[in-house]
Amino acid sequence: MAKEKKQVEQITDMDVDFAQWYTDVVLKAELIDYSGVKGLMVLRPYGYAIWENIQKVLDGMFKETGHENVAMPLLIPESLLQKEKDHVEGFAPEVAWVTHGGNEELTERLCIRPTSETLFCEHWNHVLHSWRDLPMLYNQWCSVLRWEKTTRPFLRGREFHWQEGHTLHATAEEAMAETMQQLETYANFCENWLAMPVIRGRKTEKEKFAGAVATYTVECMMHDTKALQSGTSHYFGDGFAKAFDITFTDKNNQLAYPHQTSWGLSTRIIGGIIMTHGDNNGLVLPPKIAPIQAIVIPIAMHKEGVKEKANELLCRLRDAGLRVKADFSDYSPGWKFAEYEMKGIPLRVEIGPKDIENGQCIAVRRDNGEKVVLSLAELEEKVKELLDLVQQGLFDKAKRNLVENTFDASTADEIKEIIETKGGFIRTKWCGATECELKLKEYAGVTSRCIPLEQDGKTGPCPVCGKTSDTTIIWGVAY
Amino acid sequence: MAKEKKQVEQITDMDVDFAQWYTDVVLKAELIDYSGVKGLMVLRPYGYAIWENIQKVLDGMFKETGHENVAMPLLIPESLLQKEKDHVEGFAPEVAWVTHGGNEELTERLCIRPTSETLFCEHWNHVLHSWRDLPMLYNQWCSVLRWEKTTRPFLRGREFHWQEGHTLHATAEEAMAETMQQLETYANFCENWLAMPVIRGRKTEKEKFAGAVATYTVECMMHDTKALQSGTSHYFGDGFAKAFDITFTDKNNQLAYPHQTSWGLSTRIIGGIIMTHGDNNGLVLPPKIAPIQAIVIPIAMHKEGVKEKANELLCRLRDAGLRVKADFSDYSPGWKFAEYEMKGIPLRVEIGPKDIENGQCIAVRRDNGEKVVLSLAELEEKVKELLDLVQQGLFDKAKRNLVENTFDASTADEIKEIIETKGGFIRTKWCGATECELKLKEYAGVTSRCIPLEQDGKTGPCPVCGKTSDTTIIWGVAY
Repeated sequence: MAKEKKQVEQITDMDVDFAQWYTDVVLKAELIDYSGVKGLMVLRPYGYAIWENIQKVLDGMFKETGHENVAMPLLIPESLLQKEKDHVEGFAPEVAWVTHGGNEELTERLCIRPTSETLFCEHWNHVLHSWRDLPMLYNQWCSVLRWEKTTRPFLRGREFHWQEGHTLHATAEEAMAETMQQLETYANFCENWLAMPVIRGRKTEKEKFAGAVATYTVECMMHDTKALQSGTSHYFGDGFAKAFDITFTDKNNQLAYPHQTSWGLSTRIIGGIIMTHGDNNGLVLPPKIAPIQAIVIPIAMHKEGVKEKANELLCRLRDAGLRVKADFSDYSPGWKFAEYEMKGIPLRVEIGPKDIENGQCIAVRRDNGEKVVLSLAELEEKVKELLDLVQQGLFDKAKRNLVENTFDASTADEIKEIIETKGGFIRTKWCGATECELKLKEYAGVTSRCIPLEQDGKTGPCPVCGKTSDTTIIWGVAY
Repeated sequence: MAKEKKQVEQITDMDVDFAQWYTDVVLKAELIDYSGVKGLMVLRPYGYAIWENIQKVLDGMFKETGHENVAMPLLIPESLLQKEKDHVEGFAPEVAWVTHGGNEELTERLCIRPTSETLFCEHWNHVLHSWRDLPMLYNQWCSVLRWEKTTRPFLRGREFHWQEGHTLHATAEEAMAETMQQLETYANFCENWLAMPVIRGRKTEKEKFAGAVATYTVECMMHDTKALQSGTSHYFGDGFAKAFDITFTDKNNQLAYPHQTSWGLSTRIIGGIIMTHGDNNGLVLPPKIAPIQAIVIPIAMHKEGVKEKANELLCRLRDAGLRVKADFSDYSPGWKFAEYEMKGIPLRVEIGPKDIENGQCIAVRRDNGEKVVLSLAELEEKVKELLDLVQQGLFDKAKRNLVENTFDASTADEIKEIIETKGGFIRTKWCGATECELKLKEYAGVTSRCIPLEQDGKTGPCPVCGKTSDTTIIWGVAY
């Protein structure tokens, strides 16, 4: 049987089944395809184009602050992975092992990198000599593997793409400043490019990265009020340097251990964009990161002059520096509207015979459906204004969601009630004990998201043990 | 013992031991570091920056011709790899096998991709429906693994970075046009960006890609007159489509098989740049691809006004759109000269107190050592002119090497004598039989490099069997 022209299909209502809605969007917007191996996916052109835009912006930010890209090997010998005790405990249970090369069994198992701290350390052991060589500010774009039990596109994969920054500094102070600078880079990127408001904070001992002294995070709230850890920045002190014997001659001609950081942001953020901005018509992309910012759609395309005019609009907008496409295919305008709504294109520009007569076109905002009549004389500036409005509108809506769904509580019962009836983020004081954290997870099903950098200076009771503390913490249910 | 300030060390003379010279350059120019796994290397910032520039240019060319980037999974199930008979025979003996995920043994072995034809085919089997979906013009930037026995940095690695383009077309003609277009893209890139003259040609049946109908190549000659296959473009016909059951509904509403291509260029080309342009002072980079095009070096740096003037030159050249750095470190000018020669920076710009007095600076070309006095008033345009001269000078020198070391022959004895006394490329007629190719390899140690696209239309004897043929072929010893 011959295959059909492709259909725009209905997706699940997000208020009925958010998880199914998410899967529908990921597939119908043509972001990914499943592969034959669970947890490994194909990033299709449209999905990868979003990642390329993310890469371009972040890579520029990293280079502005003096970072250089490198490429580390894909494989880590088992003995190398084991050099830092906490690190290997955290990662060894979830790595994929290569045991054979061609027809021969290897003398030592090699794991596919789950993260590259050990590889950077081995390299630095080779190349660091003097204080003149510091800081070393490295980053790599790659994919890593973690053999997760449950997987979901973008959110939790056995393979995911990311950048991992790794830096080496002469002093603890410099390393800590780097850690915080990179956290701020992520916060800036999430808020000002992805329109995703963040809470900057520190992870608890329980939640920190395996081998880190401290882990910092930007946490975002999704449309369903669950949390997404969107980027993390780790301070390592000199623990790895000692484990891997990385030393340098300082200015006083003494051997010293350098201090280290790492920081990462992954394709998981694409899941975050979907779950922050998406709606029942599909994906909604912030204009600053959208592969296509505006789509030009000719109406009554076969009437004289329509195609030409649509093409003129396309060229004008492209010349104005916008990422824009036009669809001259033989699908109906209605089909095209639905298709590009599904793909989350921030602005639709319609042009038909009547519009041409009136020297205008119609622009439709993806975020709120608003229709605006634009004079063709002012096309470029008005389209840019509208895209700015969409960007700001998305941020404001997400910020409202975050503010309206963050609640204060002071007892475990309150936390349990809020999480079961309303969801969201719950702000309490906390004594600092991992024991209380574990009990609260057991009792209310929440995990600590972060200890916000911004603290109110007040005191209150730990919701579990009742001990008075001035530390504010955020609890929630996380992806 | 405290470690020392780093030294610029001597490298092996290229005319004494070309292989050792190559290894010295790769390490001393800080392009790579060895990792703990044979054949897997660290691409250090300077080495990776060359690759990033290559990526930027090629990626732009691919996108100009309508290609989109995607990301395929890292792992291929054994059963998927086996679907195309010739392909699996070519690759199965040299893949790395993952047998365990975490603590569990996998039910099916997974190989780390040695190339991604099978993954693209599986995906296309899922998503191709109609002629409207064609062509699909995909590319991916990634690393792949092949478990080679002998390895050399860039030239032959168990892991290497590359791009692999994969395209799907409605007709054989379109697929063949794509194959040739991408070959021409590689030829253009090698000649006009890397200053590496190429011979465009077709591979013999023996040398073609596993699973291809035809493989096309651009072959370059290195300084030692050996050959480097620098980029390949394959035409697959509908063989893979049939093996993977990829079909589409054509314009007549009939099910049809699409036709396919793939094409790749890898970090091996960096080895090619080194071996084409390098000299006894180290690396020599073509300006168009060099991470740093000019280095500004202050002379008598502590004299009044020198640092400021050097910084002014840096800013002016940077503002003119050049990739330029200045070195204000406390190493001596002599040390800096040697260091940046080793790193192959195309132009050195020296500025000292005398130069400032005279309103001039000194520019030194890396390719031929020529010193030029530049008036500061014309700094930007003169530096650009000099960089163009270096680019052209490198191409001309490589072209001379290629022309002067390409020899005609008509018997196997002649070929043997030429390759043993002079090396180079040997041009003969060839009957087309794999048997003759194998005999010649056995007798003279040469392999067929390619059947050049440009043929002279004349006839002559096959050097092995003596049969008259009008097919010209190039023989050589290859990396």
